[in-house]
Amino acid sequence: MNFLEERILKDGVVKAGNVLKVDSFLNHQMDIALMEEIGREFKRRFGHKPVSKVMTIEASGIGIAAFVAKEFSVPLVFAKKSKSINIDGDMYVAEVESFTHKNKNQVIVSKRFLHEGEHVLIIDDFLANGCALQGLISIAESAGAVVEGCGIVIEKGFQIGGRVIRNMGYHLESLAIVDAMDAENGSIIFREQN
Amino acid sequence: MNFLEERILKDGVVKAGNVLKVDSFLNHQMDIALMEEIGREFKRRFGHKPVSKVMTIEASGIGIAAFVAKEFSVPLVFAKKSKSINIDGDMYVAEVESFTHKNKNQVIVSKRFLHEGEHVLIIDDFLANGCALQGLISIAESAGAVVEGCGIVIEKGFQIGGRVIRNMGYHLESLAIVDAMDAENGSIIFREQN
Repeated sequence: MNFLEERILKDGVVKAGNVLKVDSFLNHQMDIALMEEIGREFKRRFGHKPVSKVMTIEASGIGIAAFVAKEFSVPLVFAKKSKSINIDGDMYVAEVESFTHKNKNQVIVSKRFLHEGEHVLIIDDFLANGCALQGLISIAESAGAVVEGCGIVIEKGFQIGGRVIRNMGYHLESLAIVDAMDAENGSIIFREQN
Repeated sequence: MNFLEERILKDGVVKAGNVLKVDSFLNHQMDIALMEEIGREFKRRFGHKPVSKVMTIEASGIGIAAFVAKEFSVPLVFAKKSKSINIDGDMYVAEVESFTHKNKNQVIVSKRFLHEGEHVLIIDDFLANGCALQGLISIAESAGAVVEGCGIVIEKGFQIGGRVIRNMGYHLESLAIVDAMDAENGSIIFREQN
């Protein structure tokens, strides 16, 4: 069991409806030492790739991806949800549906910050049905960038997202893959990974 | 002129309507070395205070606040906008109006992550009319926490937010205070600070 799986067992809470609450250390309150360890672990897993930019989507991905970008000494670009008056007209757009919020968002990245031939590592906190990740991949490829890999902190292995991304041939690394959870007794079963 | 003012003059763009675009290094693409320098600078300015938690609001504040929290070796809590099904019922709520998006948001923090007697440093990227910051202060005080200070990256000195917060007696530090901007010639005038 790795450091993240241990932390999930210690502080994660299973709720009805296949909800895994990790808000005490990951996506509401953040344990910064854990973020740094996650950054180092993704560097270990993707360090052989020529990563020139880390990409994520607001909001909870930003803190994690910032420490990954620090390890690679590259800039971070975070995609924004919905249109802001501070964004120029010239942008890449993908439509994604949130599993958590049950709504559709336009995900946007300015064309000034993603270019042809860039080598992108996509980072996010959760992967469930994978719509957000698909949107980020779509944006990177629209720019002509190379998706070197996708790094996910927690994958819900019983949902379709991870399988879709792997079937499409992307190098997807999830630090913890939850194959089953039980809200009645609080148990969590992780997928064995090498 | 400090490191941030220099960077704003180099890479910031003044747009009509008093918009200062810093999305190439601060709030869309992030320069991680700059984030680390901002973290160290807030540590220098607030390091004599007994800070036990850093607090910010999603989304663009998260990356900055994470490096401040790292300097203080304390957890980061970021307030969320709008209600998510992943948030428990027991939370602090404040209503804030966004200057950028012209809409009202419920800002929420779980009661599990803010407690009486905690010493909070509030961090955000921009301060304009100050509604977001007032909401964060209101939430911290509802919890019985002590607001040790507010650290802002860029304050729009020609708007009311900074004056309100200082008049209320809070220790507010802004790394750059823009007193005037001109979209026609791109000029930016910073307030002299000691």
